[in-house]
Amino acid sequence: MELGLLAVYTIALLTVILAFVYAVYLAVWVKKQKNENKTIERVADLIRQGANTFMRKEYTILAAFAGVLAVLIFLFLPKPVWQGGVERNLTMALSYIAGTIFSAIAGKIGILVASLANARCAEAASHGIKPAFLIGFRGGAVMGLMVVGSCLLGVLGVLVLTNNSSMLLGFSFGASSLALFAKAGGGIFTKTADVSADLAGKVELGIPEDDPRNPAVIADNVGDNVGDVAGMGADLFDSNIASMTAALVMAASLDDGAALGIHAVMVLIYSALGLLSSIVGIFTAKIGDHGSPTKALNNSTYVTTGIFLALTALATLLFKGFRWEIWGASAVGLLVGVIIGLATNYFTDDNAPIVKRVAHASKTGPAFTILSGVSYGFMSVLPAMVGIAISSMVAYKLGALLAPTPELTVQYAMYGISMAAVGMLSIVGMIISNDAYGPIVDNARGLAEMGGLGEETIRVADELDSAGNTVKAVTKGFAIGAAGLTVISLLGAFMSEVNAVIAEMNIGLAAAGEALMAYITTFDILNPTVFFGIMVGAAIPAVFSAMLILGVDKNAQRMIAEIHRQFKEIKGLAQGVPGVEPEYNKCIDIATTGALKELIPAGLFAIIATLVVGFIGGVNAIGGFLMGNIVSGLLLALFMSNAGGLWDNAKKYVESGNEGGKGSDSHKAAVIGDTVGDPFKDTAGPSINTQITVCSLVASLVATLFINLHIF
Amino acid sequence: MELGLLAVYTIALLTVILAFVYAVYLAVWVKKQKNENKTIERVADLIRQGANTFMRKEYTILAAFAGVLAVLIFLFLPKPVWQGGVERNLTMALSYIAGTIFSAIAGKIGILVASLANARCAEAASHGIKPAFLIGFRGGAVMGLMVVGSCLLGVLGVLVLTNNSSMLLGFSFGASSLALFAKAGGGIFTKTADVSADLAGKVELGIPEDDPRNPAVIADNVGDNVGDVAGMGADLFDSNIASMTAALVMAASLDDGAALGIHAVMVLIYSALGLLSSIVGIFTAKIGDHGSPTKALNNSTYVTTGIFLALTALATLLFKGFRWEIWGASAVGLLVGVIIGLATNYFTDDNAPIVKRVAHASKTGPAFTILSGVSYGFMSVLPAMVGIAISSMVAYKLGALLAPTPELTVQYAMYGISMAAVGMLSIVGMIISNDAYGPIVDNARGLAEMGGLGEETIRVADELDSAGNTVKAVTKGFAIGAAGLTVISLLGAFMSEVNAVIAEMNIGLAAAGEALMAYITTFDILNPTVFFGIMVGAAIPAVFSAMLILGVDKNAQRMIAEIHRQFKEIKGLAQGVPGVEPEYNKCIDIATTGALKELIPAGLFAIIATLVVGFIGGVNAIGGFLMGNIVSGLLLALFMSNAGGLWDNAKKYVESGNEGGKGSDSHKAAVIGDTVGDPFKDTAGPSINTQITVCSLVASLVATLFINLHIF
Repeated sequence: MELGLLAVYTIALLTVILAFVYAVYLAVWVKKQKNENKTIERVADLIRQGANTFMRKEYTILAAFAGVLAVLIFLFLPKPVWQGGVERNLTMALSYIAGTIFSAIAGKIGILVASLANARCAEAASHGIKPAFLIGFRGGAVMGLMVVGSCLLGVLGVLVLTNNSSMLLGFSFGASSLALFAKAGGGIFTKTADVSADLAGKVELGIPEDDPRNPAVIADNVGDNVGDVAGMGADLFDSNIASMTAALVMAASLDDGAALGIHAVMVLIYSALGLLSSIVGIFTAKIGDHGSPTKALNNSTYVTTGIFLALTALATLLFKGFRWEIWGASAVGLLVGVIIGLATNYFTDDNAPIVKRVAHASKTGPAFTILSGVSYGFMSVLPAMVGIAISSMVAYKLGALLAPTPELTVQYAMYGISMAAVGMLSIVGMIISNDAYGPIVDNARGLAEMGGLGEETIRVADELDSAGNTVKAVTKGFAIGAAGLTVISLLGAFMSEVNAVIAEMNIGLAAAGEALMAYITTFDILNPTVFFGIMVGAAIPAVFSAMLILGVDKNAQRMIAEIHRQFKEIKGLAQGVPGVEPEYNKCIDIATTGALKELIPAGLFAIIATLVVGFIGGVNAIGGFLMGNIVSGLLLALFMSNAGGLWDNAKKYVESGNEGGKGSDSHKAAVIGDTVGDPFKDTAGPSINTQITVCSLVASLVATLFINLHIF
Repeated sequence: MELGLLAVYTIALLTVILAFVYAVYLAVWVKKQKNENKTIERVADLIRQGANTFMRKEYTILAAFAGVLAVLIFLFLPKPVWQGGVERNLTMALSYIAGTIFSAIAGKIGILVASLANARCAEAASHGIKPAFLIGFRGGAVMGLMVVGSCLLGVLGVLVLTNNSSMLLGFSFGASSLALFAKAGGGIFTKTADVSADLAGKVELGIPEDDPRNPAVIADNVGDNVGDVAGMGADLFDSNIASMTAALVMAASLDDGAALGIHAVMVLIYSALGLLSSIVGIFTAKIGDHGSPTKALNNSTYVTTGIFLALTALATLLFKGFRWEIWGASAVGLLVGVIIGLATNYFTDDNAPIVKRVAHASKTGPAFTILSGVSYGFMSVLPAMVGIAISSMVAYKLGALLAPTPELTVQYAMYGISMAAVGMLSIVGMIISNDAYGPIVDNARGLAEMGGLGEETIRVADELDSAGNTVKAVTKGFAIGAAGLTVISLLGAFMSEVNAVIAEMNIGLAAAGEALMAYITTFDILNPTVFFGIMVGAAIPAVFSAMLILGVDKNAQRMIAEIHRQFKEIKGLAQGVPGVEPEYNKCIDIATTGALKELIPAGLFAIIATLVVGFIGGVNAIGGFLMGNIVSGLLLALFMSNAGGLWDNAKKYVESGNEGGKGSDSHKAAVIGDTVGDPFKDTAGPSINTQITVCSLVASLVATLFINLHIF
């Protein structure tokens, strides 16, 4: 069956509309749920306000940052504006701005619904696990549907309006800028609050978790929303856009520059079918009166995966030009994603042996908690690295089969890899739903505690929360795997961009009768400039994560000082005199200002390093730089996410009465492990994805300048 | 001036003889020093015996291991023996055995002298810093001279006897096997003892460091010898041999297969001049009555560097065929080595701000000690990675200038990099002397304590020890940098080997009238097999170090149980009743057996991973594998060594009265940091070098098989 462009638009747009309608339906459903407990409502309101404070400040700074970048883009990208092409540069700058706005809106709506869902989920928990689960999950699903829907809508919009896939690089860079703020900034925020609340509250003052006397307690709950809901959403929005961008840029190079040839159509249809599968998956998520929330979450993921594979197979069968090789590539991507998730689970699940071993090591003291956690964290990188290696090799070989001439092998092969990334990210709507569920039920647990809803309700909330943690580990592994494939395909996109520029320059050179420039088809390790790039690129994620972790560290010192001040100066606070309240806002302010202050140098460092390497060694150095960045970035991201999850669950395992239980020396050691793991898994680890994406996109955007201006 | 082969041999041999004679002179000098304190002598004797126990066991297992490998080498390498070439395979196997023996002898002598020097250094410390320093330094210098002398002798021997540089791969692999046992095994031994002695002794039982009641105290002192003296010596023997091997293999490819053409002559002369410079440098090491030992050690390093640059410049001026480009490459290597050393120093010296910041973070608790140490450890990789990147780029470009035809560019360029590695390692004699000084004076401090030599002597020993730690950080950075350049040049050697095999096969193919095989001149990142190799290769050092750290962990648990048993079962031990002694030997046995047991799986894992990747993806996958290995290996080695050094010095900084001083909560936090850092810096970090070298050499040795037998 011939699939006309109009049909493609219709299919994609209808899916987007369906997703939005369903999201609105779910949001309204959540809002209609009972919400009568005054205390909870008041605290939930404080959290909502706190989240708004952060996001307002974040978006204000982001607007300034994005404004400066938009001007720079207009002036320099893809070519200096004074060399002609005002319209092109303007479109690029506008695409960039659109990217930030789309991502911001999706994040904002997600936060809104999440902060409605948390209070209602807490109340529902007093009626049992079934209604509470549904509220938590559906609140998260609104985020999932909004993010993926606006991804697809944004990409469609840019393509239709500009008819030029390179403009997607601007759009994608916009999304990355926002992700950098949301993920890394939110990550610093959330861990500042978490660590300070724990250290100053639980450890020093001996008051329980989520105690309303703790000045940092609201900031801690706000952190769950801004770091885990908005940050994670922006991160996956970014990865999803980046994978589509990479695939579409490469598709254009295969379709002779046409933005909407058959290869681009495949990308769009696969993405639309992924979204459709997620809608069905979300629809099927249910739980019995005594069912397991973990199972419910995992089952709906498997349903989504199955439907996606079936639908794309059907599309391949029906539509002209769709190829089984591409279906294979995306299926491999998706399956490897699941495998990486399962491997991550083995290393971080508290029913598997590793977590128990780390908990046991805590008996010998905190140094052994750290040493064993670091060791197993290092080991956990192997399955994911091998998985990414195998999936990209298979996808490459499948893509290469399609090459009509041997010269086009690399292009087709890289297109294959990009489709593996698209496949892995196809079910991202479901992944985000599962992921956003976590912080909602975590918040609900806090609210149940603060609202005095009683032991049984807290137990239910705890069960929901624990499922959130288990699922989070899996989805995080998935997100890192997807980001890995995405950045590999961005390397392909970078090569495509470079060659497009060279092709254009060659027209001029040919007209002037001068020698033509050679196309870039390889990045040779033994080329010293490439090697130079690899070494420098490999160091960037290490330094970037160090800057973020130190940011949390510095910021937490400030907040702890503030908590001490409040307990000293506010009379009756420590004793819990009724009516005496801490100044929650001060802590939120500190977390907000500090997070943004610590984040910007780290982000600029990554961008400037890319520019420096590019202007020193040109495109060859950048090819190596991106590769070094990918390799060490994946390694460190996997290590930090998994080690952090491992310590978190080892602590929980001890707290549930093992190895001495709560209050024992093992518990103290496990808490230290968890505190170290917190910025690993929630700040640095997941931000590395964004850092790599930002560097890759900067490289592609500035490609023209690198070609013309470099020292070696 | 024409430099005949006989002249080259004469120069090299005379230098070797000079080094050996000087080493013997120094050893005799050390032995002649006063050694009258009975207690010290008895304890020193126990340490000597313990070291012998370990080395006997180590060498026994190594002999079995090496025997099996030698048989395998004879059967399969470089080509299966049944395909003809019995003599060639036999020579390779014998070279391998010679490599293990040479390294073993050098290590054995070093240990011997070190364990003579420690007691004498302790006694001399009661007469002031001047005589004690000289004994410590000269004891270390014996090791340095022996190691470098036997390196050069071994390489000369293999070249003269076989007239085939490829046989050096076998010799070098022998040295690597030994280094794996000595460095990684010794590293597990020393940290098992150190950690157990501290935890069970200082922390649990509250007895001071180096207290003779502690059953692990002798094992701890033995550990300094076997891990730091013998292990470090074997490690640098290995790096030095590997760098010469890489350079000589590539030289042969430039000299039309001749093992001793002009390029090989340059390698030999540069190495000989490096040894000569070290001899002079060692000769000049002196200290005044109140001088600073750190300055004395650093000064002699600078003297050695200066003399080496002058002598090689002179050689370039005088000898026909010597080129300034090569002098430049080796000078760049050497200078970058010094720069990396200084950068390392900035991150680990307790007079620089970083250590103070980590010490300050300890005030907030151990989690912050860990987090800030990890962060600065990550940051510290940047200067070294950039340094290695720049030096290899410059050396490459300098080497490339010599290429007579464009096709030979890569070969000449890789020769340039290998000469940068030779340059960086030229002063290795001096480096080893400085490095072996550390454990000798560390032991001396322990002996002074156990022998009851009084406060003032211990203070002097402390000052000597602190200089040892500072210098160690610098030389470690140097060793990692040198290993980095070495493994890069081993990548070149691998390519040379592959092409030599292909050339040989092509003769057969041409005779049969079949199509010829293409030479390998690039490893393209965008080639999926190369990429597959990169990803898998990058994961290996992480898993390898995890296995070693867990090895220390498991082994320490065993030893702590043994310490508990002794304190429970040996009456009067805890109270220090005179005449009651712990069973030191039991602890030494546990450390020895455990170390070797934990090490072997890690070593086999690295070797088997190399073989699996090679048989899956052939030489392309191996090229990527080695690159991934180098990048992530350097990153992790630098991170772990520097973070470990940082925590060690932060603890010392707190102990010297800052941030609350000894016994404070900051101190406890700093001790936890140090305990985490111990296996980082003394077990895993420095063993990664060896792991990379082992993988590189296995790859080169098995090249023929990889070409003929692979899946993709």
